[in-house]
Amino acid sequence: MLNVLIWNENHHDTHDEKCMSIYPTGMHGTIKAFLECDDIKVTCVTMDMENCGLSKELLDETDVILWWGHVAHHKVPDEIAAMVHERVLGGMGFIALHSAHHSKPFRRLMGTSCNLQWRDGDRCRVWCTTPSHPIAKDVPNGFLIEREEMYGEPFAIPNPDEVVFISAFSGGEAFRSGVTYRREHGKIFYFQPGHESNPTFHNPIVQTIIKNAVRWAAPDFKLPPINCPHAVALGF
Amino acid sequence: MLNVLIWNENHHDTHDEKCMSIYPTGMHGTIKAFLECDDIKVTCVTMDMENCGLSKELLDETDVILWWGHVAHHKVPDEIAAMVHERVLGGMGFIALHSAHHSKPFRRLMGTSCNLQWRDGDRCRVWCTTPSHPIAKDVPNGFLIEREEMYGEPFAIPNPDEVVFISAFSGGEAFRSGVTYRREHGKIFYFQPGHESNPTFHNPIVQTIIKNAVRWAAPDFKLPPINCPHAVALGF
Amino acid sequence: MLNVLIWNENHHDTHDEKCMSIYPTGMHGTIKAFLECDDIKVTCVTMDMENCGLSKELLDETDVILWWGHVAHHKVPDEIAAMVHERVLGGMGFIALHSAHHSKPFRRLMGTSCNLQWRDGDRCRVWCTTPSHPIAKDVPNGFLIEREEMYGEPFAIPNPDEVVFISAFSGGEAFRSGVTYRREHGKIFYFQPGHESNPTFHNPIVQTIIKNAVRWAAPDFKLPPINCPHAVALGF
Amino acid sequence: MLNVLIWNENHHDTHDEKCMSIYPTGMHGTIKAFLECDDIKVTCVTMDMENCGLSKELLDETDVILWWGHVAHHKVPDEIAAMVHERVLGGMGFIALHSAHHSKPFRRLMGTSCNLQWRDGDRCRVWCTTPSHPIAKDVPNGFLIEREEMYGEPFAIPNPDEVVFISAFSGGEAFRSGVTYRREHGKIFYFQPGHESNPTFHNPIVQTIIKNAVRWAAPDFKLPPINCPHAVALGF
Repeated sequence: MLNVLIWNENHHDTHDEKCMSIYPTGMHGTIKAFLECDDIKVTCVTMDMENCGLSKELLDETDVILWWGHVAHHKVPDEIAAMVHERVLGGMGFIALHSAHHSKPFRRLMGTSCNLQWRDGDRCRVWCTTPSHPIAKDVPNGFLIEREEMYGEPFAIPNPDEVVFISAFSGGEAFRSGVTYRREHGKIFYFQPGHESNPTFHNPIVQTIIKNAVRWAAPDFKLPPINCPHAVALGF
Repeated sequence: MLNVLIWNENHHDTHDEKCMSIYPTGMHGTIKAFLECDDIKVTCVTMDMENCGLSKELLDETDVILWWGHVAHHKVPDEIAAMVHERVLGGMGFIALHSAHHSKPFRRLMGTSCNLQWRDGDRCRVWCTTPSHPIAKDVPNGFLIEREEMYGEPFAIPNPDEVVFISAFSGGEAFRSGVTYRREHGKIFYFQPGHESNPTFHNPIVQTIIKNAVRWAAPDFKLPPINCPHAVALGF
Repeated sequence: MLNVLIWNENHHDTHDEKCMSIYPTGMHGTIKAFLECDDIKVTCVTMDMENCGLSKELLDETDVILWWGHVAHHKVPDEIAAMVHERVLGGMGFIALHSAHHSKPFRRLMGTSCNLQWRDGDRCRVWCTTPSHPIAKDVPNGFLIEREEMYGEPFAIPNPDEVVFISAFSGGEAFRSGVTYRREHGKIFYFQPGHESNPTFHNPIVQTIIKNAVRWAAPDFKLPPINCPHAVALGF
Repeated sequence: MLNVLIWNENHHDTHDEKCMSIYPTGMHGTIKAFLECDDIKVTCVTMDMENCGLSKELLDETDVILWWGHVAHHKVPDEIAAMVHERVLGGMGFIALHSAHHSKPFRRLMGTSCNLQWRDGDRCRVWCTTPSHPIAKDVPNGFLIEREEMYGEPFAIPNPDEVVFISAFSGGEAFRSGVTYRREHGKIFYFQPGHESNPTFHNPIVQTIIKNAVRWAAPDFKLPPINCPHAVALGF
């Protein structure tokens, strides 16, 4: 059984008419609905909960966390971001959705600003560069998203371990829209589509990608953290 | 002084009216004209020359080779391709232009088919993912090519060392259009724009990129090839 | 059920007293014995068989091939090497053991000489750089191999996708001894230990690594090869 | 002219007899002496200076910073570490020497703990995996350091862009001892040798490597930081 935790800023989901009409149970509610199945158990927490809904205990039993935030990254206390960061290094998968590129945990993991250029309201075509990647299973080589926020290069991230998807936008931009990283024991996937005012999380191909990513990001096995031991010389 | 060699298939340049009108001295002639300067000496050879214009001696004194071919890759003998391949491993820079993705030396260097999807006649926007890369010097973050052959993902290449440019096409595709590799002592740059029936090599930004790439791909210093010595145990 | 094929040059296994005493059923026999289990079916072929024991049909039903060769790489016809190479690009996992670094299929996949320095008879310590990698499951961070052929840097391979193991030798050398690559649909693992005159394949940790690698290299799902279609413009 | 800044914790250099006898002008003094030349100007600052010797103005005119720290990483205020981090993203080269793997700026850049195993007093052999890399110019493929602190795998760093050196230690360990990263506009090199109680910085090969690294890490050209602009749609 995979334990998946969805963290949502939950601002637009409770304040923005457009978002509320598209996602009546919140984006986390929609994502939970398509993720949950026989072997995936999903818990949702939101920023308005105590301690942003997070605790060491909850993270310790989480295999993969999905993170969605956009306008309130700065309201997540540094200690919370540090706790999530540390747990990813310890093996918890991290899936950063859309504007989570600027979230505190993701930026700590990347070590860069994760800046990019942006504009709302483009059509978007997503293309797969690595069709045999587990995250691309049952995903066509290219697919259309009718309306999505454009994110464009340069995207200030480290050179990814793998680029799985790149996108083209009607406004002319191109973007590395699905990228993976390993950081110590943890696997990380950033996926660009998923603006709050578009029905992207209702798109079945997007759902397939996110579900694939959850399975991929889950730790293959549990390990203690990499620490800093004084080592005895064994010699040859 | 950098010794640069341009290898051109030289088929369209001598048979295709459109190409001949755009490139009256051949694509190699145009490229030579914008590359040549105080510290860059350019030689051009074409496939119709004896031994495809190549010899061990010529390659030994070449710092960087640029390769353009499209319809006659199969006419380059395997021995010639092997000779170029070996010289790249020994330190000669290799710049594969446009349809040279399917050339024999490039495929040998990559170890993959280098297949991709394609279509002629799109508008194309090229975006820089790594603005501080030497190949991107004096290049704007994004620029337009009015008409270019579309090459689209999946592009069957190894995971690049660096992705410097990605492109979006008016037909909807996206493509990793500028990628680098190190293979033993040799540096390799693949650049997608440059179809024979478009004036791409007259584009000043494209010219800047190719000239930057030549300087980048030149060996930093000369070394003997990596060989296979029996080593004496030194111990600790 | 995973279909695993072991390809062995089978020279020392039939001509060298030392090797024959350590591996009475051949190295392939020993490897088959520890790999085979409920969900892994193993077939062995050797170079002395017709067509080197290989056919398109056999490769088409193979999920992962293990390759061992040392003194007779040149006796594998180019067409056979090309057939294996193509099948790896199509998704078949490839595990190159020890001196298979110089085998024709591996060199074609790498695009480099795969040269290195070498010497027989060192003690060797293997260290894990990526403990959470599936290939490192149940493997200690460091372990000793009492006697192994030394392979030392520089190792003329492309920059690996992942370095899973590096080794130190009693003679003083260090080596990237376990490295992975993705090439089109195929996953590749090179593992350094496994000289014919040492009982390396009887080492339970080595057995764990190779078995892990087989599971890792198996295709996650089947796909048609990446080909070269003319694409219809979809536009935005 | 390259402006190089050496930052030294300067604790052992002023408190430890051994270190003081080996480096009477401090490690920074020794490094400055071998770096400085016609086109490299070196400034030294130490942790005991006001604001740790750093200011925005000083960093703005620095091309490359070298960082040495061991026991007092925690005494560098977060704001100072953030200022250095930001400047590296903006293009300043960063060379982390030895125990600077645990320094605040390096950990922020990596996004990982940078933990490793360690022990003082081994002999160490350093091997070059990428002999044609600019940092390896005039460096033999292997060389001995008589006494060095052992750092061993697993080393909790992101998968490096390039592994230039790996080391073997008399106690049996192996380590990725020279690794590079690009982070936004900045180039980073970590180099393992350089313990305070060993004369490592007097070793001419180590001096060559560090001087090469300074030239390599210097920005190729100056650029404004990657920021987050709202982009106008250009279309096709």
